[in-house]
Amino acid sequence: MAIKFSVLKEATDSRARLGVLETPHGKIQTPVFMPVGTQATVKTFTNHELKDAGSEIILSNTYHLYLRPGHDLIERAGGLHKFMNWDRPILTDSGGFQVFSLGKLRTITEEGVEFRSHLDGSKHFISPEKSMDIQMALGSDIAMVFDECAPYPADYQYVKESKDMTYRWAKRCKEHHHREDQALFGIVQGGMFADLRKESAKELIDLDFPGYGIGGLSVGEPKPLMYEVLDELMLVMPKDKPRYLMGVGSPDALVEAVFRGVDMFDCVLPTRIARHGAVMTRQGNITIRNQPYAEDYLPIEEGCPCYACQNHSRAYIRHLIKTKEVLGLRLTSIHNIIFLIRLMNDIREAIRQDRLAEFRKDFFSEYKG
Amino acid sequence: MAIKFSVLKEATDSRARLGVLETPHGKIQTPVFMPVGTQATVKTFTNHELKDAGSEIILSNTYHLYLRPGHDLIERAGGLHKFMNWDRPILTDSGGFQVFSLGKLRTITEEGVEFRSHLDGSKHFISPEKSMDIQMALGSDIAMVFDECAPYPADYQYVKESKDMTYRWAKRCKEHHHREDQALFGIVQGGMFADLRKESAKELIDLDFPGYGIGGLSVGEPKPLMYEVLDELMLVMPKDKPRYLMGVGSPDALVEAVFRGVDMFDCVLPTRIARHGAVMTRQGNITIRNQPYAEDYLPIEEGCPCYACQNHSRAYIRHLIKTKEVLGLRLTSIHNIIFLIRLMNDIREAIRQDRLAEFRKDFFSEYKG
Repeated sequence: MAIKFSVLKEATDSRARLGVLETPHGKIQTPVFMPVGTQATVKTFTNHELKDAGSEIILSNTYHLYLRPGHDLIERAGGLHKFMNWDRPILTDSGGFQVFSLGKLRTITEEGVEFRSHLDGSKHFISPEKSMDIQMALGSDIAMVFDECAPYPADYQYVKESKDMTYRWAKRCKEHHHREDQALFGIVQGGMFADLRKESAKELIDLDFPGYGIGGLSVGEPKPLMYEVLDELMLVMPKDKPRYLMGVGSPDALVEAVFRGVDMFDCVLPTRIARHGAVMTRQGNITIRNQPYAEDYLPIEEGCPCYACQNHSRAYIRHLIKTKEVLGLRLTSIHNIIFLIRLMNDIREAIRQDRLAEFRKDFFSEYKG
Repeated sequence: MAIKFSVLKEATDSRARLGVLETPHGKIQTPVFMPVGTQATVKTFTNHELKDAGSEIILSNTYHLYLRPGHDLIERAGGLHKFMNWDRPILTDSGGFQVFSLGKLRTITEEGVEFRSHLDGSKHFISPEKSMDIQMALGSDIAMVFDECAPYPADYQYVKESKDMTYRWAKRCKEHHHREDQALFGIVQGGMFADLRKESAKELIDLDFPGYGIGGLSVGEPKPLMYEVLDELMLVMPKDKPRYLMGVGSPDALVEAVFRGVDMFDCVLPTRIARHGAVMTRQGNITIRNQPYAEDYLPIEEGCPCYACQNHSRAYIRHLIKTKEVLGLRLTSIHNIIFLIRLMNDIREAIRQDRLAEFRKDFFSEYKG
């Protein structure tokens, strides 16, 4: 087994769990937020800064690395860890979500997905088997099955057929995957339909994966609907396996999803909004790019230990963002990533003390989404 | 006096000098290379990284700060040091060079320069007095007089008239400047004409500035011509004042100019070429963006102590540059700035040991411009 997951404590006031996930590149405390390093780099960060920020694992994107610099090049370099000199765990997605997001540039069949590169229009084909080959070449600690992520909204019949194909693809992935130092997670689909979600979960559980992604949420639906789906789904998810809610990273959703029993998250949100001059605080996001912050000499968030808050004012950071300076992106990115990692630390501490319900109440009394 | 300059040692094998420049924000060892922080940030760097790189002083641009965020805002923030949280010395240019570079967007008269902002086309006017007001508001340790930098090539008559006006402007700057914790340097002009250069130097020396910039070089002329001008000019430059060759930063020119008696340099070159994937080495620049480096797992330069060389391969940095990742710019920028600072350290050590001529010979036996 490439990984070992241990639940250290189950909360009594919620479905939350405190755990440890052991991988070939080290241990991860869960619940965990994984910063996204799409192109073998978490945007603006060095690896040392990521470690200093407390990041125990990062995610990288199969689709992007397949196109540039190519999984074969990375394999020859000794794998993704060595190529980017990151010695902690890496999870790779399957490329599915990125490929489906290409819209008109792709065609889905039972065999796989044909698509044109968003970079140069060149034609490519990724099947479940090909996704496994790429991820095995990258050598991530955790690989994900190639799934179809149904759009929102989508009708019942479409979502059902998509979920069925996702199951058949998951089976093909499992049969093709053979790297022993890499764990392969299944992905539950089923859109916003509770019965399809449960069916999908049961089908995947039958295939016995060491962990399960929850895909197809946070794709445009209202947040309460996402929480409802999670409520239903969690009733059938195995307790002894990590549960990974894919693509979710807003502070409120992290609190709500951990409360419902999710262990892992990833999202480009913290670095994406950082590029637009928006920063996370316990009161909600602030767009320091805006005029009111032009002469605001407070830090982004009082008491925050990040480099930005310890060294610079909102006014200076606003100036850097307005003038498109790299340091501006660095400071807002570092603040946002550390904000989410600290939030997860606080959440884990609350579970440890079995007071997550109270933590959640306090959090939402302050947080204005 | 805002600054004090002491020559610690004069070389016997060249006109080079080893010195210390004391400013209100600390001492600078000369000869020195000053990284350029155009918009109150040295592109891609944090202040801590700049200090770790060994940067004892930075330059910032009056024209850019005047437009954004405005010198009045920076003055209200407590000055440029406080605004950007940099507690070491800062030199500001006069805005002249940037304004003249606007080409058709500006009109020069005896009174000053009228120009349109490159950002929004708004109309502005900077006179020698206005340049002083802006630099006094910024509160740099060293301010520069507002000069006209003649283009290359330019005919004798044009350069003579331009040099004469630069003298009259220098006088007006000196009369208007009244910040006691800020030194004001004159700027020698005179194009490529040895007699005009010497006249300009003598006129400025009569005004008795605590230091002298050498402007209007490295503006397109062949390097040997620049060195000829320096050879002639240095015969009349006062020995007890710092000499600052403006806008020069290629490794070969640094060696040649120190050899001729220059003490200070600034240039955007290291960070500008870094953005295009070019890195400096003792053998000359390498464009690691290019295909031959795609699977080159050596560091940029063996033995270099910078973060990029200590942690990453040319292949990985090339990937980052090709994919336009911020970390790519950071790694090439940090290498180039540290390369120049280390070169200046080596140059100072060579002067200290009175073997600069030998150092220069060794340097050029390796360096392919």
